[in-house]
Order: sequence, then structure tokens, then C-alpha cells
Amino acid sequence: MNSPEIQLLIQHLSKLPGLGPRSGRRVALHLLKRREKIFRPLIQVMLDAEQKVKTCHICHALDASDPCTLCVDPKRDPHQICVVEDVADLWALERANTYRGGYHVLGGVLSAIDGIGPQQLNIQSLLDRIAESQITEVILALNATVDGQTTIHYLIEQLRPFNLSVTTLAHGVPIGGELDYLDEGTLFTAFQARRST
Amino acid sequence: MNSPEIQLLIQHLSKLPGLGPRSGRRVALHLLKRREKIFRPLIQVMLDAEQKVKTCHICHALDASDPCTLCVDPKRDPHQICVVEDVADLWALERANTYRGGYHVLGGVLSAIDGIGPQQLNIQSLLDRIAESQITEVILALNATVDGQTTIHYLIEQLRPFNLSVTTLAHGVPIGGELDYLDEGTLFTAFQARRST
Repeated sequence: MNSPEIQLLIQHLSKLPGLGPRSGRRVALHLLKRREKIFRPLIQVMLDAEQKVKTCHICHALDASDPCTLCVDPKRDPHQICVVEDVADLWALERANTYRGGYHVLGGVLSAIDGIGPQQLNIQSLLDRIAESQITEVILALNATVDGQTTIHYLIEQLRPFNLSVTTLAHGVPIGGELDYLDEGTLFTAFQARRST
Repeated sequence: MNSPEIQLLIQHLSKLPGLGPRSGRRVALHLLKRREKIFRPLIQVMLDAEQKVKTCHICHALDASDPCTLCVDPKRDPHQICVVEDVADLWALERANTYRGGYHVLGGVLSAIDGIGPQQLNIQSLLDRIAESQITEVILALNATVDGQTTIHYLIEQLRPFNLSVTTLAHGVPIGGELDYLDEGTLFTAFQARRST
């Protein structure tokens, strides 16, 4: 019953992650009822991002400049590379504000089921970067999933010839986590890796 | 640490209903990683909707034409007006596919707390419509909230001089609803309004 413009808007919004038909309708109506204050500014911001944001050819992160701000920042340690699965993980680590080296976004993890092999990931460019510069440590900050761990093992093999320090993130009880709610695997790992105080 | 373009995109997306900072980031990344297939089509659809969709001056619904398709549809009964709070409610009733008359969107309900009086709602235009045309029934399909019921009582008073049939939606057990989960008010109403089979 709606005009095609409204229907298309709802359709496209409903397909965004986290939204469905009901929330898509809600967002569409929210925008259509607030043209000046919300709809037009959002469109402008989207046009801007779509046109200006690109993928950094060195670390494969997203930024308005290529090479990205992180890659050219002189205050960041050029001897460390932190390998992450996705740009979202890079953002999460940056929010934690604890790491001051470089990054490398793989663009996924190895997955036999999804047919993702080493060629589909930014692995060759990682090895090239390491071969060309004075990297001393590679931190494999991949998700603690089965595919993430498989990818870590594959990368460790690939990195062996370079004779550098390869590290992974510590596993254990998350800060603020309650033991009662944690899975056995996490508790087992946290127990095995217990430290004297 | 992100470029201002990405930060602004996340900020604007995070403020949409149902989204927050985390889902805003997720949507932003989803769009930035799928320019051709998702981001650009979405922007185009938004531009289209923003430019073409307007508010119908008769019923205050949203449509690409003014008067809207519903108001000019010759197949719809011109003697009935269904009064709803919001365009979303109109859409919900149209999905139910049960009503074939006209609509009138109030644009809200009376609310002392939010400072919304009769002047802030499309009530005068409703009374004008009724005075000018051959309306025989007004269906007050407002939400079953306190403010919705207050508005119904106010509208019944305003409609009294016109000598027409004023109806409200039936209250009762929703289809598929389990008695155990329903509130006392609904059960009381459903019991009072019980029907012989």
C-alpha cells in the first residue's frame, strides 16, 4: 500500500545488520518525520563517508587517507604488527588504548566451510610487509573461535622463517566476568595459566 | 583514532531508533565494506525518499503524492475515517488488510506530561474533514495506553455535535495470546465482553 519510495527505503534499511522488517519500518518513519534534523544530515554524512573513506593499501584498515593515519603516525612503534581479523577488531583494540604499534587487517579467517583459504585473506601482503621492514614482533589478535585458532596456527607456520617474536592474546576470565557464567574452556585455560601474586 | 568521516557516520547511525554505539559501528562497517552492493544503493534510496515523500494534506499520512494514494483511491469507502496516532499504526492496519475506508493521522496523543494539547495534534483538520464531507463513521484506533484513552475521550466529546457513529477497537485476548501472560486489565475486559458462541 505504500509508495515505492517508502517501500524501498524500508527494504534496504531492514537488511542492515541488527535490523529487521519491524525496526526497518521504525527507522524509515523516524527519518521521514525528521527530514531537516536527522534524515538530510545522515544522507550527507553517508555520502561523505562513501566518497572519502578508502582501504589502506598497507594495513587494509579503513581511513580517509591511504596510507592510513595509523600507518604514517610517527608516534607508533614500527617494529610491531598486530594482526586482526576485521576492522572492527582494530577499532576495539584502539578503544582499549593499550597498543601503540602497527596493524594488519586479514579481512577474515581461514574457513573450510565458507571456502576461505589463504588466498582470500591479506596474508601475502602481511608476509611482504614483514620481509621489507624491521618488524620484531607479530601479535596475532584473532578471535578465540575455532576458525580464529586455525588461522593462528597457519600464520605461525608462515611466520616461522622470519625469526621474529610471534605472540597471541592471553586467554582467561574477562574483567568483570562472573565465574558462574563462564564456559568450561575459559575456566580451564584461566586455571592452567594462573599466576602467582 | 578514526577519520572524522567514519566517526560522524557511526555517530549518526548510533542515534537511530533501536541502534546504539555498538550496532552503529557494526552498520557503518557493513556499509563501508560493501560500497557497490549496499552502501550506494541505500544512499540512492534515501535520497529518493527524502526528496519525494511528503505528508498528505488531507489525512497526514506519508506518500510520494499529495493527496496520498489512500485518500484518492476510489475503491475505498469515503464514509469512514479511521483515526490513528501515527503513520506506523496506519501501516499496521493496512498490513492487517481488513479496513477499506479512509484514515486520519493525529500525529500523537494528548499528554499533559509531554505538554501535548489539542493544538499540537491534527484534530482541527479532522473536524474540518468531517464537517465538509459525508462521513458516517469515525473509528478511533488509538493505542490502548492511558494517553491514547484520554485522547479517545476528548475526541468523542469533539465529535458529539456531528451526530455520527463513533467506534473504538475491541479489547480482549490477542490471537495467539496465552492467558497466563496477559495482564489483569486485559483479562477483565475480555471477560466482561465475552460473547455467546
